[in-house]
Amino acid sequence: MKRRNLLRMIGMTAGSAAMYQAMSSLGLASESPYKGPNPLGEAPKGASVLVLGSGIAGMVAAYELRNAGYKVQVLEYNARAGGRNWSLRGGDNYTELGGFTQRCQFDPGLYFNPGPWRLPYHHRGILSYCKKLGVPLEAFNQVNHNAYLHSEKAFGGKPQRFRTIKADYQGHVSELLAKVIQTRKLDEQVSREDQEKLLDSLRQWGALDRNYAYVKGETSSLRRGFAKDPGGGLTGRPVQSEPIALKDVLDSELWMGIPPGEDYERQTTLFQPVGGMGRIGEAFGRDLGPLIRYNAKVVDIRQDDHGVTATFEDTSKSDSPRQTATADWCVCTIPLSVLGQIPMNVGSQMADAIAALPYASSVKVGLQFKRRFWEEDDEIYGGISYTDLPIRNISYPSCDYQSSGKGVLLGAYMWGLDAMEFTSMSPEQRVSKAVEYGSQIHPQYPGEFDNGIAIAWHRSPFALGCFGTWSEEDREKHYDNLCRFDGRIVLAGEHASYVPAWQEGSVTSALDAIGRLQLRAQAAGSQT
Amino acid sequence: MKRRNLLRMIGMTAGSAAMYQAMSSLGLASESPYKGPNPLGEAPKGASVLVLGSGIAGMVAAYELRNAGYKVQVLEYNARAGGRNWSLRGGDNYTELGGFTQRCQFDPGLYFNPGPWRLPYHHRGILSYCKKLGVPLEAFNQVNHNAYLHSEKAFGGKPQRFRTIKADYQGHVSELLAKVIQTRKLDEQVSREDQEKLLDSLRQWGALDRNYAYVKGETSSLRRGFAKDPGGGLTGRPVQSEPIALKDVLDSELWMGIPPGEDYERQTTLFQPVGGMGRIGEAFGRDLGPLIRYNAKVVDIRQDDHGVTATFEDTSKSDSPRQTATADWCVCTIPLSVLGQIPMNVGSQMADAIAALPYASSVKVGLQFKRRFWEEDDEIYGGISYTDLPIRNISYPSCDYQSSGKGVLLGAYMWGLDAMEFTSMSPEQRVSKAVEYGSQIHPQYPGEFDNGIAIAWHRSPFALGCFGTWSEEDREKHYDNLCRFDGRIVLAGEHASYVPAWQEGSVTSALDAIGRLQLRAQAAGSQT
Repeated sequence: MKRRNLLRMIGMTAGSAAMYQAMSSLGLASESPYKGPNPLGEAPKGASVLVLGSGIAGMVAAYELRNAGYKVQVLEYNARAGGRNWSLRGGDNYTELGGFTQRCQFDPGLYFNPGPWRLPYHHRGILSYCKKLGVPLEAFNQVNHNAYLHSEKAFGGKPQRFRTIKADYQGHVSELLAKVIQTRKLDEQVSREDQEKLLDSLRQWGALDRNYAYVKGETSSLRRGFAKDPGGGLTGRPVQSEPIALKDVLDSELWMGIPPGEDYERQTTLFQPVGGMGRIGEAFGRDLGPLIRYNAKVVDIRQDDHGVTATFEDTSKSDSPRQTATADWCVCTIPLSVLGQIPMNVGSQMADAIAALPYASSVKVGLQFKRRFWEEDDEIYGGISYTDLPIRNISYPSCDYQSSGKGVLLGAYMWGLDAMEFTSMSPEQRVSKAVEYGSQIHPQYPGEFDNGIAIAWHRSPFALGCFGTWSEEDREKHYDNLCRFDGRIVLAGEHASYVPAWQEGSVTSALDAIGRLQLRAQAAGSQT
Repeated sequence: MKRRNLLRMIGMTAGSAAMYQAMSSLGLASESPYKGPNPLGEAPKGASVLVLGSGIAGMVAAYELRNAGYKVQVLEYNARAGGRNWSLRGGDNYTELGGFTQRCQFDPGLYFNPGPWRLPYHHRGILSYCKKLGVPLEAFNQVNHNAYLHSEKAFGGKPQRFRTIKADYQGHVSELLAKVIQTRKLDEQVSREDQEKLLDSLRQWGALDRNYAYVKGETSSLRRGFAKDPGGGLTGRPVQSEPIALKDVLDSELWMGIPPGEDYERQTTLFQPVGGMGRIGEAFGRDLGPLIRYNAKVVDIRQDDHGVTATFEDTSKSDSPRQTATADWCVCTIPLSVLGQIPMNVGSQMADAIAALPYASSVKVGLQFKRRFWEEDDEIYGGISYTDLPIRNISYPSCDYQSSGKGVLLGAYMWGLDAMEFTSMSPEQRVSKAVEYGSQIHPQYPGEFDNGIAIAWHRSPFALGCFGTWSEEDREKHYDNLCRFDGRIVLAGEHASYVPAWQEGSVTSALDAIGRLQLRAQAAGSQT
């Protein structure tokens, strides 16, 4: 079966198996390096597409449509490509809604990702574009057993090492279940034979001793760490550590820091582009070159039987006259939070869907310190410390391990009310506040702090929020209406996906949309 | 207190707190980059030390003793520095006992570590030397949720993804304990209040549903992975996956693959030097330069009241006359498996200790393939697949992710009888056998195999084994005798540590030994 026919067939059965899977097998995904021509087949002669937004979704669409032979033009609000795919580096300026302007003062080579920062191994779409565009990847360290779990309310506010909470929780749970088995209370649920196997596994899994107890000893220390590490010679004898009681582990609620790294979306292997997540957007931007018109603020979108016209203003010039761009089709990737404010003649189904989706508010703070004290003093190399303070996360750089000189970490990743409260302050105050909170976990903060930058997504002029937050109800009611073509317009982006907030949602949404666009364009072409 | 006095004090109380901790605080460890002069203080004028072996222990000793002002000479059997710290690259030759010679045929840039391959974050000693010597590190990926767990006897021999076994084991265990709590069978062990907290935590930790059941659903799929991943647009609806029953998880014994990555020695953050573990030995070798005499096979070690003399042969020349090297003191780092065969006039306590320690037999196989199919086909980026086949481990490279071209992986890491059986074959046959076994996990093996190399430690002429295997009894009886000075001779190496098989054992053993050497040398110096 020819590639084009295959795509036509699977594209026809919407909601069924898998435009995406099909595209994978055609070479778009990481399974086999894509070598052939474009996955869409050939564009109908002379067909044109207007892409609104040069975020990941817009650029994936533009890249593939261009390769298929479409005449493509991209309108982008910002002066750069990438959208929420973005890294801030020294010298970068950013102005948020309300007028606060920040200038990033990081040292050369250091960066901070205000938007996405992780790439899961199963996000084949975005990974395959990294490969195609030559964006090198390195491991992102999500789980660091030596990072901290912290609560103001637990252990007198003293941060605990991830490894001790994890080992102790798992050990106590294993011991409890082992006791239940030994007292024959599980006979109804599990066969005697399986109980024996379960006991054996619990001992190894929970680091229990010979009597199935989770207690101070070499076995538990080889999981949770020692009071004094084993060493060499006559001074090397290790000192075992004392587990924390189950009650204290439970009361602390620090166990809540364990699951994140086990979730499918944050399991190993995670990646980050070398040099910052923004390297992906930058690479796409270079590849698309003059197809992207920057500083173009779309103020109106009109379609009729013949095509789609976007009206835009050039934000780099004052008193810029309104201009227009026209094409046969439009792939609109503008975040719904922004799109909802732009006049566009689509039907009520798509319009209602656009209006329905609320966006998350979020603040991220990047902090530069004079030295990498988290490595030098605390032996924390990459990974994330979790706290119940409003800053929530401190994420240490997963690169340049053991390097000397300054370092930048993620000093806060805040949501909802915390994020809103933070934006009642100026950016400078937000940074100060993040340093103040972080000092509870790292007392070195005040002495080592150098400079910082605070990005609030709900105050971003180009996104007006972090990502679309679908409820089950909203998705049931609006999702398909959001994704379906309305005349000559189709929407794409993380908001038009089942992978909200992730770049993979943008990629797969764009691929799905242009697959359908191609079918329509071909059908239209064959009628003329 | 002056550095030297502090060291003197702590050195005097052997077995007590911590030469190592002290050295840490003096700047040897990663807490603070070492900036000051050497940690030993000054050598007595004219004092000399003969170091036997240029493995990690020998070179740490030589490095610090030289910096302190000792006259240092190192005798090394091999033509290179590093000992078991070693990376094989294209063009390298290796001859094992019995005469089999292998020539490594890897492509440029690819390597294989026959010896140590991982650096835990808490191995401060070896990490600090990486920093001092400018050896860049990158993350070693131990746990890869998408790697395989495999048993010939389970699931019809079909490899299972790590994530599914881990999620299902943890989910079922959580469900069982939750049921026990709900049926009030835990009232004796845990307070009612804590039971509520435990239930809440089990639900999150085990990925249970609202009814505390571990069942097919979004919650469990967000842990174990989906049957069809979520995507974008109209074709993006995910398909949930079906958990494996507890009985099948237990019967498979695949859960045994979970604990390794949770152990203190293999927890995140793990490192590897960029370009191969051998980069550390090479850097030490460059730093020590002419202090190391290569191709020097020690055949006799004599001491008297005035010094120590080692007799050696130059293995690079046939009919080389025996030569000698003499110094005031000797730090001997030759593996006990070899040292036991070299005449040396030490007392029975040290001699008995040397004779007592058995060494592990081990085989590692490095395999080069024509392409990185584990990434391209299986989405496995770094990490380790475990199997109950004799090869035990397949470890994928934790570097150059998504790169094109060839790749080298660890195709076997075998122990004991399996290792002995493998060495009844020629190296070529061992490599073939590793490919044959590995094909059960990766059917791509036969088609993609390029070349390989198989290193058997028990047949290594310079180590005669992988590492010293201490039993509790042996350690009780012999360890201190092994580590104590015998006259002017002190031993160091992983065998003289509580961290056997790890380079950190070598480093800390060497630091402990030279700390005591300095005290003795100073005492001897002040008497003359």
